[in-house]
Amino acid sequence: MADKKPHYTAKPYLAATARFGSGDDSPRDFLERCLAALAAHESEIGAFVHLELDAARRAADASTARWREGRQLSAIDGMPVGIKDIIETIDMPTGQGSLREAGALIVGKTVTTEFASTEPRGTRNPHDPSRTPGGSSSGSAAAVAAGMLPAALGTQVLGSIIRPASYCGCVGFKPTVGALNRGGSYDGLSQSCTGVLAATLKDAWQVAYEIAARTGGDPGFPGLYGPPSAPAAVKPQRVVFLETAGWAVASAGAKQAMTDALARLKSAGIAVLTRQSHARIAAIETAIADARAVSTRINTWEWRWPLNTYRAIDAEKLSRASRNRLAEAESMTLDDYRKVWSRRDEVRARHAELAAECDVCVSLSAPSAAPVGLGSTGDPSCTAHTSMLGIPAVSLPLLVDEGLPLGLQVSGFQNRDADAFAAAAAIQALF
Amino acid sequence: MADKKPHYTAKPYLAATARFGSGDDSPRDFLERCLAALAAHESEIGAFVHLELDAARRAADASTARWREGRQLSAIDGMPVGIKDIIETIDMPTGQGSLREAGALIVGKTVTTEFASTEPRGTRNPHDPSRTPGGSSSGSAAAVAAGMLPAALGTQVLGSIIRPASYCGCVGFKPTVGALNRGGSYDGLSQSCTGVLAATLKDAWQVAYEIAARTGGDPGFPGLYGPPSAPAAVKPQRVVFLETAGWAVASAGAKQAMTDALARLKSAGIAVLTRQSHARIAAIETAIADARAVSTRINTWEWRWPLNTYRAIDAEKLSRASRNRLAEAESMTLDDYRKVWSRRDEVRARHAELAAECDVCVSLSAPSAAPVGLGSTGDPSCTAHTSMLGIPAVSLPLLVDEGLPLGLQVSGFQNRDADAFAAAAAIQALF
Repeated sequence: MADKKPHYTAKPYLAATARFGSGDDSPRDFLERCLAALAAHESEIGAFVHLELDAARRAADASTARWREGRQLSAIDGMPVGIKDIIETIDMPTGQGSLREAGALIVGKTVTTEFASTEPRGTRNPHDPSRTPGGSSSGSAAAVAAGMLPAALGTQVLGSIIRPASYCGCVGFKPTVGALNRGGSYDGLSQSCTGVLAATLKDAWQVAYEIAARTGGDPGFPGLYGPPSAPAAVKPQRVVFLETAGWAVASAGAKQAMTDALARLKSAGIAVLTRQSHARIAAIETAIADARAVSTRINTWEWRWPLNTYRAIDAEKLSRASRNRLAEAESMTLDDYRKVWSRRDEVRARHAELAAECDVCVSLSAPSAAPVGLGSTGDPSCTAHTSMLGIPAVSLPLLVDEGLPLGLQVSGFQNRDADAFAAAAAIQALF
Repeated sequence: MADKKPHYTAKPYLAATARFGSGDDSPRDFLERCLAALAAHESEIGAFVHLELDAARRAADASTARWREGRQLSAIDGMPVGIKDIIETIDMPTGQGSLREAGALIVGKTVTTEFASTEPRGTRNPHDPSRTPGGSSSGSAAAVAAGMLPAALGTQVLGSIIRPASYCGCVGFKPTVGALNRGGSYDGLSQSCTGVLAATLKDAWQVAYEIAARTGGDPGFPGLYGPPSAPAAVKPQRVVFLETAGWAVASAGAKQAMTDALARLKSAGIAVLTRQSHARIAAIETAIADARAVSTRINTWEWRWPLNTYRAIDAEKLSRASRNRLAEAESMTLDDYRKVWSRRDEVRARHAELAAECDVCVSLSAPSAAPVGLGSTGDPSCTAHTSMLGIPAVSLPLLVDEGLPLGLQVSGFQNRDADAFAAAAAIQALF
């Protein structure tokens, strides 16, 4: 972000661990730096719904001892992390349990929207408190961007990891659908998946890897494939630029930033394929144009029963948006669902053929910088397609719009998350 | 069961509803007949962990009024049902909610084993209290067989619907995996599915249909396909007899009963294909021979995180069997899981090719009548393959071993549950 002085310093963790053995630095010191950022900024940003500082400090001291003695539990032993507060009735999410086993410090639960989908709940964008941080992984993105945490868990069903990463200016990683076990959450939507907001690509990969190694993917899915530390950069030969439905509503600044980025890729010798240059890509653009509508319809039906149950328990606790969604769900039939479900399958198969044409696709992570106002978490039209397709996507904080962060989205192909990371690392190195 | 006088009268519901409009019978009267059976036998059988009799009676009166006025909510309005008490921490299962919407009366929660998988919890077989009712849907099968309920919900991951149906002598229906929404249960195993124990095929289909119409399948699955009332009988032209791993351990009586049943099919003009007659069937028998081991390995990994979490909350509450299972799970890696998961996929694809050869497959539902003793819920070697394959299976109470009930299992092909029902109805009519 050349023309913007960031107010905050992101806090990469893996890079810091090199000095833990010698005692020049330690998990406890790292945690205290995070907590200093938290103390300074949390009252303005509002990223957390719950903090466990005493427990985190005790865990940090134990981790400090392990690093000194060379018996750390994993590469992320001692990493302070936040967990998206997915649903209030949540019991004990699997991702959190596995991170604890890997030695990570659970600093707190981060703010999300109601049922991770509808009403925003007050977190502010670290770069401008009058703007949304994006959602629904609002608190996770804001805390990472503000240097309170090196990484935090999020979930995405439409854009809830990539969009807040874009708005807040951190790395976002939405894995292949099913790649990280969602056990313990009531979020069972078929497109939804757990992912990571992080200070760096390496931190993001490591957190995802440590969860997958301990819990696998969702039952019936093969889990995140890839190496035990972040894949090395591999410059893609050919990338597809996908406009997505977001291009038509993108700001002039965002379009210019993307155009400049594509020029930079070309200068580096990367072929950039577009809807103008290839008929097959034009066909994919058409097929994904209604990704948001298809996804919303699928999600609405799949939310029907949880929402119905919550209404039965206490209707007053549902927001108007949730009540509207339930009304729509109750107007749907199983056959209506099957229609959009078949369409999703069909578009997935068609998009998979693109793998023969390119290494990865690139697009904007959002149509603009974070919009002013906290009443909406922003527009998912640049991200709905990766959720609908179930493919891995990474948001890199490389672009600028209105002097604020904007993400460059790198998307890959099912179960090839590591390839998407390798390409993303190479693309990041060009900026 | 020609050579056995049943102690109990099963209570078909759909057949009874014909007289509800005139007032000659009513949901309240039907419920009272169920409750009479319950009062007479529950102390010996122990099918329920929780009863809601007052609420059921109130709901029955409301249903009675609806039937008299011709405004019943569904074909099963007023049907007394039991819900398998899947896991103690369960919140509000979707299946139960949808049955309530269809007007069914939730009479109570039925006994299951610990985590629906390991330790039996005391239900006795209605036909002989010294014998197991089978598991894990123990209470559901026993209550239906003893005439306390026309239908009850169960779940199966290895044999937990078909086996207790066989041992207790009622109809069991394990749908295509994913066909009935499991929302609200922590049972997220990839092979597990919700199904029905019922007095008749018609009751079983109707309960499944009413759930699917209101909740669909699991998120990402197309849900139960089929007509709004039980498919009419269609005599199969060709059936495959699958020995399964159960044949090698089957009792002499069970083998004789199956051999007689196959002869009866042949006399009716149905071609019976076997491993001896067709090389492709022999190959399928080989491929499913280790279905129990493959399934158990898959289930063990997938149970890792819930069990791990329960241990973290209170290790003392886990049985020795669960602790052993957790130890095995923790010795597995994600790659170990991927191996069995790939094998399952491969066998599924191979079995699907059988659809070109036959209408349905038949086999024993269990290797023998219910064994003596309550310490085990019996042998799943006749049923593990249908769970591994994710295919629909129906157990018909047509056979006899040791003068006790034994099921004839009719299995079909993914998402063709209705075809399996149509064939099962025709087969049943031959007995």
